[in-house]
Amino acid sequence: MKSAKVRVAVNGYGVIGKRVADAVSAQDDMELVGVADVVPDYRIRVAVERGYPVYASLPERSGELQAAGVPVAGTLQDLLAQVDVVVDCAPKRVAAANQAAYQAAGVKPIWQGGEKHELAGYSFVAQVNYEGALNRDSARVVSCNTTALSRISHALHGRGLARRVRAVLMRRATDPWESHRNGMINTATPETKVPSHQGPDAQTVIPGLDITTLAGAGPYNLSHLHFAMIETTRPVDVEELRAILLETPRVALVRAADGLEALNSVMELMRDLRRPRGDMWEVAVWEDALASDGREVYLTFQVHNEAIVIPENVDCIRALSGTEPDAARSIAKTDASLGITRHFLPSSRPPRVTPGQGTPAGSKGAEEPTAPR
Amino acid sequence: MKSAKVRVAVNGYGVIGKRVADAVSAQDDMELVGVADVVPDYRIRVAVERGYPVYASLPERSGELQAAGVPVAGTLQDLLAQVDVVVDCAPKRVAAANQAAYQAAGVKPIWQGGEKHELAGYSFVAQVNYEGALNRDSARVVSCNTTALSRISHALHGRGLARRVRAVLMRRATDPWESHRNGMINTATPETKVPSHQGPDAQTVIPGLDITTLAGAGPYNLSHLHFAMIETTRPVDVEELRAILLETPRVALVRAADGLEALNSVMELMRDLRRPRGDMWEVAVWEDALASDGREVYLTFQVHNEAIVIPENVDCIRALSGTEPDAARSIAKTDASLGITRHFLPSSRPPRVTPGQGTPAGSKGAEEPTAPR
Repeated sequence: MKSAKVRVAVNGYGVIGKRVADAVSAQDDMELVGVADVVPDYRIRVAVERGYPVYASLPERSGELQAAGVPVAGTLQDLLAQVDVVVDCAPKRVAAANQAAYQAAGVKPIWQGGEKHELAGYSFVAQVNYEGALNRDSARVVSCNTTALSRISHALHGRGLARRVRAVLMRRATDPWESHRNGMINTATPETKVPSHQGPDAQTVIPGLDITTLAGAGPYNLSHLHFAMIETTRPVDVEELRAILLETPRVALVRAADGLEALNSVMELMRDLRRPRGDMWEVAVWEDALASDGREVYLTFQVHNEAIVIPENVDCIRALSGTEPDAARSIAKTDASLGITRHFLPSSRPPRVTPGQGTPAGSKGAEEPTAPR
Repeated sequence: MKSAKVRVAVNGYGVIGKRVADAVSAQDDMELVGVADVVPDYRIRVAVERGYPVYASLPERSGELQAAGVPVAGTLQDLLAQVDVVVDCAPKRVAAANQAAYQAAGVKPIWQGGEKHELAGYSFVAQVNYEGALNRDSARVVSCNTTALSRISHALHGRGLARRVRAVLMRRATDPWESHRNGMINTATPETKVPSHQGPDAQTVIPGLDITTLAGAGPYNLSHLHFAMIETTRPVDVEELRAILLETPRVALVRAADGLEALNSVMELMRDLRRPRGDMWEVAVWEDALASDGREVYLTFQVHNEAIVIPENVDCIRALSGTEPDAARSIAKTDASLGITRHFLPSSRPPRVTPGQGTPAGSKGAEEPTAPR
C-alpha cells in the first residue's frame, strides 16, 4: 500500500458512488483521495461542497465540469495514480470498459452488481465470504437484492439448515432521483425470466445454495419487498429463526405492531432516525410475519436498494487491501462507523448476544444434493 | 322450481352484484327477477336504466331510493317470495345477517368469498367441485384470489401432479370505484399473517391440496398479481404444463412478447376487446414466464378481482337449482354467454383440443402425504 491508510477512489458519483464516498470518508483506516464523474449536475456540486476532490472520468469532457464551476483536480488517470483501490460505480455498460485503465494503473477495482461475476471472478458479501477476498486483485459487490438474499440465506445455509430457498421479489419501479423520467403508475410488471437473475447470482456468493427466485416490479420507488420460503433440513421454529436473525449481521427486525406496516413506514423511520439520505443499510425483516410450519420457514423483508451494498463496499476495500484479515472485525468497524444496528427502536426486544455470533457453523448439511421431485 | 327458468335475485348491487346481475340476464335458462340495494347512487341508477326491477334491501330505507327517483318494486321480502336462488353480494358484515330472511323465504342463498366457509359448508369453484353443489340449499363462491388459485392448483392437483403449492400474491390496494377514498401510493404492504388466508381457503375447495400462501398489497387497483411455485410429483416440463393450462377452463395464456407486459396492458386488452367494464373472467397466465426445473413448475398470473368470480356465481346458480347436472356443460354454457376464451388474441397459438378436457384424472398421487422435511 502507498500509505498507512487505504487510499480509495470512487469512479462514478451516482446513487451508489456518492454513498460509498461518504462511507469511505467515515472510516479512520481509509482516505477518500477523490471522486470521478462526467456530468456537472447537482450531485457532483454537493461533492465539491463536501470537499471531495473531483476528477474527470472522461478527460475530453473535463471542460463541461469546469464550465459549470466544478474545480477539476485532474483526470481519472491522475486519480488512479494516487490510490490503492477504486470503487467502480459507473453505469453498467461503462464499468467494464474501465478495467484496462485500472489494470494499467495497478489499482484494485471493486465492481458493483450490475457487472458480470466473471469480471472479477469473486462475488462478495462480507458476512458470507470476506476472507476469500483477502488481498485479491478485484472483487464484485453483488446487487442490493442479491446482498439481502445472501445475508438471509447464509444465516440458515451457513448453519446447515437451508435445504432449498424460494423467494419472490417485488422490486421498486425506479430510484427516487429518476422517478420523473422512468417509473410506472397503477400497475405491476412481472419478470418473464424465470428464475430471475437474483437466485443464480446468490449462488455466486453461496455456491452450495439451492435457490430459485421469481421477480416483479411495482409502482413505488422506496425499496424492494421480498417474500422468502426456506425449506429447512430439520424443523426450525419461529423462536429459533428469530434467534438466528438476531445473530446475523446487518439484519434488523421490524414489527407491524410498532406501526411499521409497509415500505414507506420503515423508510420514514430511517428519516426520523436522522439516517443520512434516510438510508437503511440493514435488511429489515418483519418479526411479526416470521412463520414456520415445521417443514420450512417464511420471511418477509425489505431491501433499501440505494443503501444496502454500501457497508459491503467498505468491507470489500479492507479485504482487497488486506488491512483487516478478520471479517467480523471489519464488519463491526464498518457498522460502528455508519451506525448500523440490529434493532432500530429501543422498544424492540434487544438481540440475544451469543458468543461467536456472525460466524455460523460449517454448512455441512446444506451440501447434501436435493433429490429431484 | 317455480318455473322452467331459474328465478334469481341479486341482493347487494356493488362491484360483484352488478356484474352477477348482468351475467344472469345473459343466461337463457335464468331470469333475473330483480336486484336489491340500499343506497340510491349512480350504480343503482344504471340498474334502473337496464330495466332491472329494484327492491329495497332495507324496507326502512326504501324512501331514500324513491326520493332519488328510483322506482322501488318492493322490499327484499317481496323479491325473495318470487325467486329460487338469491346471490348475496351484500357487504361482508351484512351478508350473514340476511341468512334468516333467506331461510324464511325458502330461497337458496349463494354467498361470496367474504363470508366464512361454515356459513354454507360448501365452497364452490365450478371446474373443481360443481357436482358436489347439485341441489344443495346453499353454497359459497370463494374469493377472487382463491378462485384463481383453485383453478390453477386443480389443473395439476386434479391430475395427481401437485405435491405442494407455494404462492405469493401481490394484491391490488383497492377497487377502482373507491380509489378516491382508500388506496396507497408509492409503497407496498406485506401481510403479517403467514400463511395468508387464501391458502387455507383454497383447501376448503380442494381438500387434499398442500398449499401455503404469502401476500402483500401494492399501490394499484387494476387486479392482483400471483407468483406460484408448484412442486410436482414427477417432472413436468413447460410444454406439458402449457398443454395442461390449455385444457383448463377459464385460464387464458398471455405473452409479454405480444406487449402484454404488465397488469395494465392486459386490462387494456380487455377494453380493446370491448369486454363489459373491461372485465377479465379468466386467469391470465404469462406463457413466456412458464418455467420448470424438473422438481417444480413456476407460474405467474393475473387475477381480475372484480370479474373472475362472476362465471362461478352463474354456474353455482345452476348447481343449486339442479337444472344442469353436468359441470362441463354448465361451464361451456356460461362461457359462451359471456365470451370467456382461452386465447384472447387470434395470433396466440390455439389450444390443443384434447378429448375429456376439463375433466382431469383422479387425484390419486396428490393424496400421498408430504413427509416433513
